[in-house]
Amino acid sequence: MNSALRHFTKFESKELGSKLIESALSYKADPRKDISKGTGKRIGCIFLNPSLRTRVSTQLAAQNLGMEPIVLNMDKEGWALEMKEGAIMNKGTVEHIKDAAGVLGSYFDILAIRAFPTLTNREEDINDFAFGQFVKYSGKPVISLESAIRHPLQSLADQITIQENLKNIKKPKVVLTWAPHIKAIPHAVANSFAEWTLGMGHDLTITHPEGYELDPMFTQGAKIEHDQSRALEDADFVYVKNWSSFNDYGKILSTDPKWMLTEKHLRNAPDAKVMHCLPVRRNLELSDEILDGSRSLVQRQAENRIYAAQSVISHILG
Amino acid sequence: MNSALRHFTKFESKELGSKLIESALSYKADPRKDISKGTGKRIGCIFLNPSLRTRVSTQLAAQNLGMEPIVLNMDKEGWALEMKEGAIMNKGTVEHIKDAAGVLGSYFDILAIRAFPTLTNREEDINDFAFGQFVKYSGKPVISLESAIRHPLQSLADQITIQENLKNIKKPKVVLTWAPHIKAIPHAVANSFAEWTLGMGHDLTITHPEGYELDPMFTQGAKIEHDQSRALEDADFVYVKNWSSFNDYGKILSTDPKWMLTEKHLRNAPDAKVMHCLPVRRNLELSDEILDGSRSLVQRQAENRIYAAQSVISHILG
Amino acid sequence: MNSALRHFTKFESKELGSKLIESALSYKADPRKDISKGTGKRIGCIFLNPSLRTRVSTQLAAQNLGMEPIVLNMDKEGWALEMKEGAIMNKGTVEHIKDAAGVLGSYFDILAIRAFPTLTNREEDINDFAFGQFVKYSGKPVISLESAIRHPLQSLADQITIQENLKNIKKPKVVLTWAPHIKAIPHAVANSFAEWTLGMGHDLTITHPEGYELDPMFTQGAKIEHDQSRALEDADFVYVKNWSSFNDYGKILSTDPKWMLTEKHLRNAPDAKVMHCLPVRRNLELSDEILDGSRSLVQRQAENRIYAAQSVISHILG
Repeated sequence: MNSALRHFTKFESKELGSKLIESALSYKADPRKDISKGTGKRIGCIFLNPSLRTRVSTQLAAQNLGMEPIVLNMDKEGWALEMKEGAIMNKGTVEHIKDAAGVLGSYFDILAIRAFPTLTNREEDINDFAFGQFVKYSGKPVISLESAIRHPLQSLADQITIQENLKNIKKPKVVLTWAPHIKAIPHAVANSFAEWTLGMGHDLTITHPEGYELDPMFTQGAKIEHDQSRALEDADFVYVKNWSSFNDYGKILSTDPKWMLTEKHLRNAPDAKVMHCLPVRRNLELSDEILDGSRSLVQRQAENRIYAAQSVISHILG
Repeated sequence: MNSALRHFTKFESKELGSKLIESALSYKADPRKDISKGTGKRIGCIFLNPSLRTRVSTQLAAQNLGMEPIVLNMDKEGWALEMKEGAIMNKGTVEHIKDAAGVLGSYFDILAIRAFPTLTNREEDINDFAFGQFVKYSGKPVISLESAIRHPLQSLADQITIQENLKNIKKPKVVLTWAPHIKAIPHAVANSFAEWTLGMGHDLTITHPEGYELDPMFTQGAKIEHDQSRALEDADFVYVKNWSSFNDYGKILSTDPKWMLTEKHLRNAPDAKVMHCLPVRRNLELSDEILDGSRSLVQRQAENRIYAAQSVISHILG
Repeated sequence: MNSALRHFTKFESKELGSKLIESALSYKADPRKDISKGTGKRIGCIFLNPSLRTRVSTQLAAQNLGMEPIVLNMDKEGWALEMKEGAIMNKGTVEHIKDAAGVLGSYFDILAIRAFPTLTNREEDINDFAFGQFVKYSGKPVISLESAIRHPLQSLADQITIQENLKNIKKPKVVLTWAPHIKAIPHAVANSFAEWTLGMGHDLTITHPEGYELDPMFTQGAKIEHDQSRALEDADFVYVKNWSSFNDYGKILSTDPKWMLTEKHLRNAPDAKVMHCLPVRRNLELSDEILDGSRSLVQRQAENRIYAAQSVISHILG
């Protein structure tokens, strides 16, 4: 069932997406069915930024395949990595990505890495610079645990969750709606969700205040609708997410509470299921009534993170 | 031998206590005798506060049962959890306990959690609010790794240690003596020690300076004696512990060095064994001469933490 | 092949050194050949200071022997240990090394510990005080993961790497050359490299600016040459390393960029291989051209850390 996969960093094709979803659902039904597949293989999970769900779900996925995951939290203070080529390292960085990635590549069979954007240097972020340096120098298969611009394991889990809740809908109406937040949040989850939803052939509408346009590289093919109420009409799935401005890079342009999704917002979408990648700021991004009600798929999405990761690792093991 | 247990958060009954002690001693004699019992089962150990003994002993206990423990250190800065119902999360907390506990419940078969008291909000602490929220929302068996008001794994290890050192004493005289400290310390260890010692049918005397009365919920049935010297007479086991004031909540009312236990204090208790849960502040709570002498059971208590945890996990596995 | 070893803290003899190298190379050829040797045995890896290579390579080595490694990061803020005998613990330290080491000794079969020097108290550092206290009170075999004055696992990996690259050279010329750095760096790697290189019978030249003499305890038998250019002539292996002053203890006396090794420095050593323990400050200690060129053995050294640790643990298991 599993064809070989080198890296897992972004949406590749509907065919591969479908295979990964199918394989994930089979692992969900029987998590330990391939318990010997990864015997003696090592996966190193490197976090340049903190993580809860991603870390634990990836560890569990690896253990379900009989692998020995090792987690490394290398946050910016503890082990600051130099990313720039040719840097004279007489400042705060203690090791160059070339050397660190090379060593980790010699220690593990698969590497998984989280590298958030700067949200200040747009050029660097768009090019997914830190993540790319890691891929370039590690010499081993790399799984993205969220890069500057994508979070493909989250998106795969999201598509698994949509698949599980499709019933008989042929082409579901999926709405990605911006939500207020008090901090400047990366674009990765929103970008990837658009990329995967469009790639899997669903109907995608994106709604947000003006000035919050995402990078068109990810949203081409989606309807952009600034009227949230119109966008939500007859939605089958509503994905709630904050992101900071892309054009006015990394800025917070609005915290308008009218954009927080509540039951009232869904009066014209009676069957809509609501999704969020977590962590969610309750009563700021999303109301308690929705999160605690029957529309919510957020716990399901989180649980599916295990099987998304397991499916990806299994494909890379080949 | 093991009857099923749902949560492990407090003393339940002398019958269950005896079973847990008996099972712990059998694991101490042969730690890996049930090495296949937990195959494929996961335990997540969540620390909202730092830990050394509790963390390692629980990991080892789980490994002795063939389980794969995963440790999560979620201290207040790294991943601040919101505990209040209905909170509008527009401040420092990044995730609600409802959501985090639900996700962790879907990732693990058993959860173990440490949640210290605030020592400022007495009402919240008495109700064991944070810990209770976790139990409420996780949907899985929960083991307390020390809550705001109890530390039952420590107390079980303490009772195992008393049992091992009882010789032929039918009803040992156990003394819990307050000791000086420079920081405001929670009541959990003292509360639980009283609860378990009384519950197991031992004779308990508690001695402390005036103003240091513990919550009567835990001490009913114990003798309270403000004269430390009289309290210690003919003691079989002396448990040394600091705690902050309960009535003048979380305050330090005394650091009187006369309360530090030394050999001189035990001149009328020649056979007394001395206990402490560790970490201990040497020559502040307890003198070197006692800790390094033959009365001390502190290393034994720490070692018994492994088998206390193993016994509890084994009972929960059923 | 493996004779029993109690502690691994320093160079013992050429005979043992040769055995450890031979065993390491056999593990490199077949890492999991002794996968059952450590079943049910535990190794605790305690870091009083941060680590990347040492931590991961030791975990992998233990896993290759079927052991369950547990890592404890006890940095100075999180769990400050008191090291002094007889201390009255009414300040910042929360637990005495006596108690902590004793507990860890009861939890693990083998302990591995990292304890850096103060670089301010020379007397304490020379006596390897913190590390020694740990060995004294743990009651179990102890592996040094770098102490105040030695880093023997690094040195073993270095000797393995030299052995792999010896070709037909009988007595290689090995040069240890000081390099500039912006921080005050411990002497442990330089000391141990000298100790092992001399112990294994190689020809060692040490070159550094005046004032950077290492402790003669480690360098007796080496040539000391202040003219770097002369020292490097016809070198077979050049080990680049910064260290702070030993005589003017812990001070930085020079950051002279002329001491940074470049290709130009090696014009009279055409076949020289270049070594560094990593992390390396690129273009401060060593130039990119060398690190990225064919002379560099640094990635090989890092990889050999796994097999150095595996060889040592295997010898201790006996």
